[in-house]
Amino acid sequence: MPGVIVTDPPKAAPRDVAALAAFGVATVHEARGRTGLLGHHLRPNQQDTRIAGTAVTVLSWPGDNLMIHAAVEQCGEGDILVVTTTSPSTDGMFGELFATALQRRGVRGVVTDAGVRDTAELRAMGFPAWSAAVSAQGTVKATGGSVNVPVVLGGATVRPGDVIVADDDGVVVVPRESARETADRSRAREEKEAATRAAFLEGQLGLDRYGLRATLTDLGVEYRTYEEHTGAGS
Amino acid sequence: MPGVIVTDPPKAAPRDVAALAAFGVATVHEARGRTGLLGHHLRPNQQDTRIAGTAVTVLSWPGDNLMIHAAVEQCGEGDILVVTTTSPSTDGMFGELFATALQRRGVRGVVTDAGVRDTAELRAMGFPAWSAAVSAQGTVKATGGSVNVPVVLGGATVRPGDVIVADDDGVVVVPRESARETADRSRAREEKEAATRAAFLEGQLGLDRYGLRATLTDLGVEYRTYEEHTGAGS
Amino acid sequence: MPGVIVTDPPKAAPRDVAALAAFGVATVHEARGRTGLLGHHLRPNQQDTRIAGTAVTVLSWPGDNLMIHAAVEQCGEGDILVVTTTSPSTDGMFGELFATALQRRGVRGVVTDAGVRDTAELRAMGFPAWSAAVSAQGTVKATGGSVNVPVVLGGATVRPGDVIVADDDGVVVVPRESARETADRSRAREEKEAATRAAFLEGQLGLDRYGLRATLTDLGVEYRTYEEHTGAGS
Amino acid sequence: MPGVIVTDPPKAAPRDVAALAAFGVATVHEARGRTGLLGHHLRPNQQDTRIAGTAVTVLSWPGDNLMIHAAVEQCGEGDILVVTTTSPSTDGMFGELFATALQRRGVRGVVTDAGVRDTAELRAMGFPAWSAAVSAQGTVKATGGSVNVPVVLGGATVRPGDVIVADDDGVVVVPRESARETADRSRAREEKEAATRAAFLEGQLGLDRYGLRATLTDLGVEYRTYEEHTGAGS
Amino acid sequence: MPGVIVTDPPKAAPRDVAALAAFGVATVHEARGRTGLLGHHLRPNQQDTRIAGTAVTVLSWPGDNLMIHAAVEQCGEGDILVVTTTSPSTDGMFGELFATALQRRGVRGVVTDAGVRDTAELRAMGFPAWSAAVSAQGTVKATGGSVNVPVVLGGATVRPGDVIVADDDGVVVVPRESARETADRSRAREEKEAATRAAFLEGQLGLDRYGLRATLTDLGVEYRTYEEHTGAGS
Amino acid sequence: MPGVIVTDPPKAAPRDVAALAAFGVATVHEARGRTGLLGHHLRPNQQDTRIAGTAVTVLSWPGDNLMIHAAVEQCGEGDILVVTTTSPSTDGMFGELFATALQRRGVRGVVTDAGVRDTAELRAMGFPAWSAAVSAQGTVKATGGSVNVPVVLGGATVRPGDVIVADDDGVVVVPRESARETADRSRAREEKEAATRAAFLEGQLGLDRYGLRATLTDLGVEYRTYEEHTGAGS
Repeated sequence: MPGVIVTDPPKAAPRDVAALAAFGVATVHEARGRTGLLGHHLRPNQQDTRIAGTAVTVLSWPGDNLMIHAAVEQCGEGDILVVTTTSPSTDGMFGELFATALQRRGVRGVVTDAGVRDTAELRAMGFPAWSAAVSAQGTVKATGGSVNVPVVLGGATVRPGDVIVADDDGVVVVPRESARETADRSRAREEKEAATRAAFLEGQLGLDRYGLRATLTDLGVEYRTYEEHTGAGS
Repeated sequence: MPGVIVTDPPKAAPRDVAALAAFGVATVHEARGRTGLLGHHLRPNQQDTRIAGTAVTVLSWPGDNLMIHAAVEQCGEGDILVVTTTSPSTDGMFGELFATALQRRGVRGVVTDAGVRDTAELRAMGFPAWSAAVSAQGTVKATGGSVNVPVVLGGATVRPGDVIVADDDGVVVVPRESARETADRSRAREEKEAATRAAFLEGQLGLDRYGLRATLTDLGVEYRTYEEHTGAGS
Repeated sequence: MPGVIVTDPPKAAPRDVAALAAFGVATVHEARGRTGLLGHHLRPNQQDTRIAGTAVTVLSWPGDNLMIHAAVEQCGEGDILVVTTTSPSTDGMFGELFATALQRRGVRGVVTDAGVRDTAELRAMGFPAWSAAVSAQGTVKATGGSVNVPVVLGGATVRPGDVIVADDDGVVVVPRESARETADRSRAREEKEAATRAAFLEGQLGLDRYGLRATLTDLGVEYRTYEEHTGAGS
Repeated sequence: MPGVIVTDPPKAAPRDVAALAAFGVATVHEARGRTGLLGHHLRPNQQDTRIAGTAVTVLSWPGDNLMIHAAVEQCGEGDILVVTTTSPSTDGMFGELFATALQRRGVRGVVTDAGVRDTAELRAMGFPAWSAAVSAQGTVKATGGSVNVPVVLGGATVRPGDVIVADDDGVVVVPRESARETADRSRAREEKEAATRAAFLEGQLGLDRYGLRATLTDLGVEYRTYEEHTGAGS
Repeated sequence: MPGVIVTDPPKAAPRDVAALAAFGVATVHEARGRTGLLGHHLRPNQQDTRIAGTAVTVLSWPGDNLMIHAAVEQCGEGDILVVTTTSPSTDGMFGELFATALQRRGVRGVVTDAGVRDTAELRAMGFPAWSAAVSAQGTVKATGGSVNVPVVLGGATVRPGDVIVADDDGVVVVPRESARETADRSRAREEKEAATRAAFLEGQLGLDRYGLRATLTDLGVEYRTYEEHTGAGS
Repeated sequence: MPGVIVTDPPKAAPRDVAALAAFGVATVHEARGRTGLLGHHLRPNQQDTRIAGTAVTVLSWPGDNLMIHAAVEQCGEGDILVVTTTSPSTDGMFGELFATALQRRGVRGVVTDAGVRDTAELRAMGFPAWSAAVSAQGTVKATGGSVNVPVVLGGATVRPGDVIVADDDGVVVVPRESARETADRSRAREEKEAATRAAFLEGQLGLDRYGLRATLTDLGVEYRTYEEHTGAGS
């Protein structure tokens, strides 16, 4: 696999990334029309942490972290490293030494659908990680791959410079061109949700707020008492 | 799927629920003759939390939370929402807004073999959740289903009004008619375990306490020194 | 399954175990030439805990913990209980009562590719566990098995008396004959990593430190600017 | 687990079973309002085979086939053996010897969410099997369980005497009281499908036959040419 | 999810598709530099069948096949239907009626990472299918989605008009612009493989043919007799 | 991973292998005291095929088949190639070219817990394969490993020269020293099973043949009529 290292990808504007950082993954995902989720198999290595940053992408051979070394050089302030492999792998491709190098460069975290290791150390140093596996299994540096090409994780495509938002609910990608618009929509959505929250706290039902009683009727969903229902032979 | 919303199911008595709340899931499961476990794939969203309550059940279409909205109206003080889908789904069908509405109504938690989202918020507001997945993926409100009909999660049937006990070990259901008896048996079991714990702390072996040495002999399990064993060509 | 209980296996020397306890699983695994990992499916029941000890091994029938009772008697100061089943099982074979008995005997933890229960209690009493599942499902005491025979968990063989090291990254086994040598190599590796960490903190790249630029060139990995790359029809 | 063997459960009428045998699992499942599917993880051991029969149910301990022996005696002409375990198991609990005994008694097949073995022999002797696993792993006869109690496989409850229909698509259960009605509905559905098939063969579109163009419009699904769409920046 | 139906996507030239149809998935995948595989979880519903065609893509809500109905109208001679869902689903979204409609239109097969049903009928009518699941579970027609937008299955992106090649080994996508070049490279690869096959049949070793003895030496792989090796204490 | 290629391992005697070839995997597994099964996740690429042979073992890096090339040279008449990877992999490491080279050398088949490809070709040429995955994904030749060292697949250890028996039920290993004894025990077991089969065909029940009625009574399993049982409040 010859591969390519792309050196100067366009990136989402820092202030748009900062705007997106104010919202949770679920909100951003909704604001994106429910696209861009990187799959529920990516789980956080820490709790109660949310980050947003621009993607530096890595496509590695399974069991080989050579291209992560190449990627470090391409990483800078405000980036998030996004690593996938050409076929499924659970190896611990990323650990504390990489985190040390990246943290110094201002990188905000790592997302991978392979594995991470040194998980206690990563938490201790405050370098957040989302991965599909935790594994102490190490890797070699023998096979080529690519840096800053589009990669696919769990059904979503991540291009270099796209915005990654990650929190306890998972990871979502926002195309760099849509960052500002998505932040605006996220804000609008949050305001709407704040109103809903207030209404719910006052006791309003979603059935009424969203006009769902008519939907239920249209769909033929019936209300029955337990006696009617069990007497009806259910 | 037309579906039905059953409005007044019988429920286990509050004092029986309270009695069961004193015991862990493993104890209650044993007291039920080792039946009623909802499957080890349901994992808690929080640590060191135990709840007991009466089930309000929801059968939803995958990717659709319409029936959860219908179920909120059927929920009250001391209930636990139990949600399953007609086919496997990992979508985040339940989040902070539902929790807000339910918490106000006195609902104690949610159990689902689909997914939850807003997991950090759920922990922050003290609304416990057990689920098979965490996913930011949202849902629509387009397809019918049922509320308060018997549902199956992970090999156990939950009827409306049955008692749900959930803790770090998982989730167990107790039929509403058996709540008191199960509480009594759980208490007896705990007393027995307390005696065993004391005996173990004093150094007694399970082999002796449970009379298992004879069992081993009957089964033909032999004791051998390492030398005998490796000399024997094992 | 008749089975055998082997009573006096050789064990790694306590000071070698103590030496290994100073290193994380990832380090020890590297020092062992990347062998001995017990599989990334074994997850800790607690956070930020590392133990090392000598293995007492158990081969049980699924759904049956008779042989764990037999194993308790064979356990002593500095041991770690390692339990597998003859076919895959998620049952909660191990809980707080076993932990009570073992803790009194100086046992340091349990590792199993089946399930554990009483997980909150295990954390509360400081008895660490690594398992493939958490399940309240209890077991019977009806079928034979073996204690202190070689067992296989997740691709690695554990013999009685071998050293087990376990932390947040997983579990690794070190053959008892290699304990000292592995500790030495782990120390050497840590020193090397400390130097690398310092270099990374000063900004050196892995590409340079490990001489990987030549590797990339040899493998045909090209550097291109984004313009070159996208102009090139990517 | 003490358990019970229930000896004379009511069964669906043979002519209703025969009527259901004329329809595939997908048709019966639709006719049942899309309930009763035993989970897509149950796969056939043979191809192009469909059976229908009345369930004799078995709840076994994992790794233990004692209760299948007890169940054989309860099986007769036109039955299908349905086996589940109290916790997940992949063991080969059922093989050629059981099939020999059952075939002689007129039993039509076996369905289990554990494993089967002797799979080549089962095909050779024409005894169909649906299972979640194939495994040569044998079992013991040491722990109790139950026969002819309601069991749950893959989200559906099977009671003794209920009708099981199984084919290449999977396995569905029809409550014994609903057998005739379900056969009637299946027939009606097949007739409707035959008409649809004919219409499709003549070139009619589902969009028109089911009136879905309006649905698409209502849902806001737009038609665009490729040029419009890509020009629109998607 | 509003969605869009794109009506006139560019497609790979029929003669390039025909050229690719001469090669197996493994060969085409190699010729594409080992990219484009749709994941090993997509399994064929039939044996010894290979097809190639142009993709008509569908993005559906889980449990909902409305957009497949919309897609039928967009399908024509030489196409292959490619269906994914917005979140994981095993439902049988595709069956014999859809196959009937598509076969009439000259469609060559279906590929989906959800489920198919009527599997015996699909084989009988010679309409090949590749899917991640077989399930009798039916779907509704209630929620929007898209047709002929780029979709992701198992780590690869499929755009409308791209070439799909599928056989017993799985499914690969070739971008429409690369169809001819990939066919050429596949042919070259097959010729090379034919030469290798002939050499292997004459007894040449891969070690010699590919010059791997030097690689082994460079990597430090040693040859030892069994006596040397076991005497060496391994 | 430096690795070693061991060149002259002792092997089981051909006549003992031939003797074992007469028995199915389930029989041999029983004759081995139910040990040695390589895991139910290894599935055959063909139907109704049984082989026995002596193991040539390969430990490869994931995504890398260099060591299979090295292993070919070590393979001869009557061998079976057994391939595992240092961490989980689904890549198609083995295909038709390797099979061509091995078939010429008299090798009888391949067993791997990674993936195979060219599956239609392998069936066409009559080279049987058992694998954990089918995948067109190819591999590189860049990283070292070992040949003819002990390897672990699915919970069992395979040493070079051990006997592998594989059929539709899976794969079992017999230590080379135990081959003859296991063949003898398999024969005895088959004779016993033949008697049981005859008895079952004449209508005897396992309950009576194995004396299980007393077991049921001892375990407290009760017989009840359906009326007694349902009247009893089940």
